[in-house]
Amino acid sequence: MDVAVTVFNERGYDGTGMEELSKRLGLSKSSIYHHVSGKEEILGIAIGRALDALFAVLDEVPDPVTTETARLEHVMRRSVEVLATELPYVTLLLRVRGNSEVEQQALERRREFDRQVADLVARAAAEGGVRDDIDPHLISRLLFGTVNSLIEWYRPEGGIPVSALASSLTEVLFEGLHGRQPSSPEG
Amino acid sequence: MDVAVTVFNERGYDGTGMEELSKRLGLSKSSIYHHVSGKEEILGIAIGRALDALFAVLDEVPDPVTTETARLEHVMRRSVEVLATELPYVTLLLRVRGNSEVEQQALERRREFDRQVADLVARAAAEGGVRDDIDPHLISRLLFGTVNSLIEWYRPEGGIPVSALASSLTEVLFEGLHGRQPSSPEG
Repeated sequence: MDVAVTVFNERGYDGTGMEELSKRLGLSKSSIYHHVSGKEEILGIAIGRALDALFAVLDEVPDPVTTETARLEHVMRRSVEVLATELPYVTLLLRVRGNSEVEQQALERRREFDRQVADLVARAAAEGGVRDDIDPHLISRLLFGTVNSLIEWYRPEGGIPVSALASSLTEVLFEGLHGRQPSSPEG
Repeated sequence: MDVAVTVFNERGYDGTGMEELSKRLGLSKSSIYHHVSGKEEILGIAIGRALDALFAVLDEVPDPVTTETARLEHVMRRSVEVLATELPYVTLLLRVRGNSEVEQQALERRREFDRQVADLVARAAAEGGVRDDIDPHLISRLLFGTVNSLIEWYRPEGGIPVSALASSLTEVLFEGLHGRQPSSPEG
């Protein structure tokens, strides 16, 4: 799977043929067809892996269980970690454009993920932990826009550690660029 | 240009041949070659347009001229507007992977843009308007990660107005999801 996903990310899924997969995997085409029905099945398994990992984060319960706001912060932090751990799989997922049944299903699961995050944002806003002057769906899109943009430049090997990246991203999004304001500023 | 850029975005630049361009433009291939040397020149003009628009924002001076922090906020807001106005051109720019001389030059200009934004973040931090506990280059990448992610879902026609989007995005990034905290919270 790792090799196939790497090839898809390098050449684009649509631009990758079974010939190329066979060469890079070091397997005959008939060996590949012994395991899967074709490249679409490989795509389905790969993006399913990324989606399963992201949905699992929504079901995690932060310890200690506190507020909806803490859950949201946990989801953001853990999503960065999933993106870093499953980088090639998440990259493939985020490039899917809906050109086949498998891709359409993946887009539908991404929309469901967005809905669940937007619901969490709304609950966090209702308890006063998140601003309520911006639509929760827009907030959800901005949050995951920031997280998803990491695939464009983040490489776990040799860069900033995942935990530091997850902390900085969560800090900026929750506290803002201005940072925590002193409670009674002088001057 | 608009038609060519639309075709590139739909089919991918690498997947678009002169045959397809000729059909979609309603021009013979020899007519196209009368104007440009090939599809790479079209790509260069198109992504140059997006880059020029983004660099122009860096040279704008907000009115009234106040602080470096205000300049940074202005750059964020205006970048959202450029992205919305030049959506197909910016989309094409952001998908460039460096597969040719033209694409390499575009990636170099994007890096230069990032450097200039990071410098602005550092100046804003030096005057106390932006938190100084996160590397300015990382902040620059998170900011433009959020802005650039808009190409994935934002469509100016029939959605949230550009000015409202620019305000919400800037608000979330500068003030944070928690919003402005009351200066002396009770309880």
